Amino acid sequence: MIASDGEFDFIARHLRPLAAGHPAALDLGDDAALLEPAPGTQLVIAKDALVEGVHFLAHDPAELIAKKLLRVNLSDLAAMGATPLGYLMALARPKALTPEWLARFVTGLAEDQALYGLALLGGDTVGTPGPLTLSVTMLGEVPRGQALRRSGARVGDDLYVSGTLGDAALGLKVLQGRLSVSMTASDYLIERYRLPEPRIALGLALRGLAHAAIDVSDGLVADLGHIAERSGVGAELWAERLPLSAATARLRGALEAALTGGDDYELLFTAHPEQRPAVEAVARELDLPISLIGRIDASQTVRVLDSHGQTLPIASAGWQHF
Amino acid sequence: MIASDGEFDFIARHLRPLAAGHPAALDLGDDAALLEPAPGTQLVIAKDALVEGVHFLAHDPAELIAKKLLRVNLSDLAAMGATPLGYLMALARPKALTPEWLARFVTGLAEDQALYGLALLGGDTVGTPGPLTLSVTMLGEVPRGQALRRSGARVGDDLYVSGTLGDAALGLKVLQGRLSVSMTASDYLIERYRLPEPRIALGLALRGLAHAAIDVSDGLVADLGHIAERSGVGAELWAERLPLSAATARLRGALEAALTGGDDYELLFTAHPEQRPAVEAVARELDLPISLIGRIDASQTVRVLDSHGQTLPIASAGWQHF
Repeated sequence: MIASDGEFDFIARHLRPLAAGHPAALDLGDDAALLEPAPGTQLVIAKDALVEGVHFLAHDPAELIAKKLLRVNLSDLAAMGATPLGYLMALARPKALTPEWLARFVTGLAEDQALYGLALLGGDTVGTPGPLTLSVTMLGEVPRGQALRRSGARVGDDLYVSGTLGDAALGLKVLQGRLSVSMTASDYLIERYRLPEPRIALGLALRGLAHAAIDVSDGLVADLGHIAERSGVGAELWAERLPLSAATARLRGALEAALTGGDDYELLFTAHPEQRPAVEAVARELDLPISLIGRIDASQTVRVLDSHGQTLPIASAGWQHF
Repeated sequence: MIASDGEFDFIARHLRPLAAGHPAALDLGDDAALLEPAPGTQLVIAKDALVEGVHFLAHDPAELIAKKLLRVNLSDLAAMGATPLGYLMALARPKALTPEWLARFVTGLAEDQALYGLALLGGDTVGTPGPLTLSVTMLGEVPRGQALRRSGARVGDDLYVSGTLGDAALGLKVLQGRLSVSMTASDYLIERYRLPEPRIALGLALRGLAHAAIDVSDGLVADLGHIAERSGVGAELWAERLPLSAATARLRGALEAALTGGDDYELLFTAHPEQRPAVEAVARELDLPISLIGRIDASQTVRVLDSHGQTLPIASAGWQHF
């Protein structure tokens, strides 16, 4: 429970309100949270960590760091088709962190809690001589047997992705001063990097429709590789069909960013070709672009094809955080 | 899921075996774990973080750091009367960490998984420019409504603690070179600091018997304060009744260590005086000393009394990690 290091005042003042009203949190007053999932449901549990200087930059706004922390974990739930319930948080804070910074961080948590229907259920705060290190355990629920998995892709499936690709990787380059773009494009790309939109509603809509799903966090090719490996299949990606934002489309390196840039947090999923009308209906209903970008095959490899059907070399199949 | 930073080889080789056999882990191959608690049970969820240089020392053996990581979280489950199920782990590792160190760390996890019936269900591995930072989310279950809480203490309750107090705090002093003791005492005290024993079996036995419980992690007086605060009561502690090990009893500062030293991970609990025979039976059955050390009263304060009933001044009511 959130109680180490004698930080009782900080907890009472800032964190307890984040737990208010959720019975599982026990008012952050016990050793652990106590949660009873609804009958017939399975609990979905994701745990992702963010480190200053690795996953976010020291001068990123505190509110946005808080939101990104929740959202990368919510994106894991979206990829499983789960409804979010609440979260536990571990916060290792350097001495230099000010009360003002923490207050803004808590404001960011509170805003996204309201947006996604979450409560803080427990966790731990500790000191660290190192960089700010955050970890969230996000809990969600899904009706028994209906979770989306990476392992369900079948040969012949259509391959889809939501939203646009590559924006976050280019936004990071802008923040690092490695890419110059117009002010408008800069704002857009940086926001895509700092404030991903977990596709919760899409994940829910894909239950019973998609055969396999994953969120694009390591990069399109790498994450498609995870689906291929877990499903025992291969895939071809159609380069000219990859969805690019207006800001990204005009930049040099757009295709590479779309293929290998991480942090987009869009959903990549496969479905039977007969489901095309159903997928199109979901896109309309959610007002979210969903693009058909390739096909699952039996090749056991992931290949990127140009508009002539020729295989493109992929510079980097994986993606490293900076 | 355990998959960041392209550490796929490390995961496959070292971590996947820790998940083997548990259906909730999905072979660490999906975005999240998928767990279905047994009907009629509540899930108990604890999350504690450990930081190198704060909660353990850089040269502590890797196996013992792994075990302490699991055990401090298991101790939270014990305090709630829960049966452990499994855990998720976030590991932020500095570049200097060697594969050999990690292999020994995984060995420690595997040994305690076998001892406590656990499986690794998911998590995240990331790089960090700072110290090794570990966080575990421990999952357990308890029959609905039977969880032990901090808030149930009643005026007139007996106050008990398991095992002995102060050993861990003195063991840390020995490790820091701030205390000289005999070789035998040194080994004992250091082991008590490095390798706490979560009182899982005691927690289970106290369901329906104890009114309130907590594990002693911040120090006896501080943790009793948590019970008093959550229960709206006060308490008196009888200094001469505090259980001290042979090694601790002969040391200067033993009483202060027992009252305010942290990291003992014994269970502190209250029960109706009519339950004395039942508590004694539990102690015999588990072959674990349980000492009657005080009484719950209506004073709204925690006081320490000497053998003449005089209030002792307490040097420090809280406890800071070093």
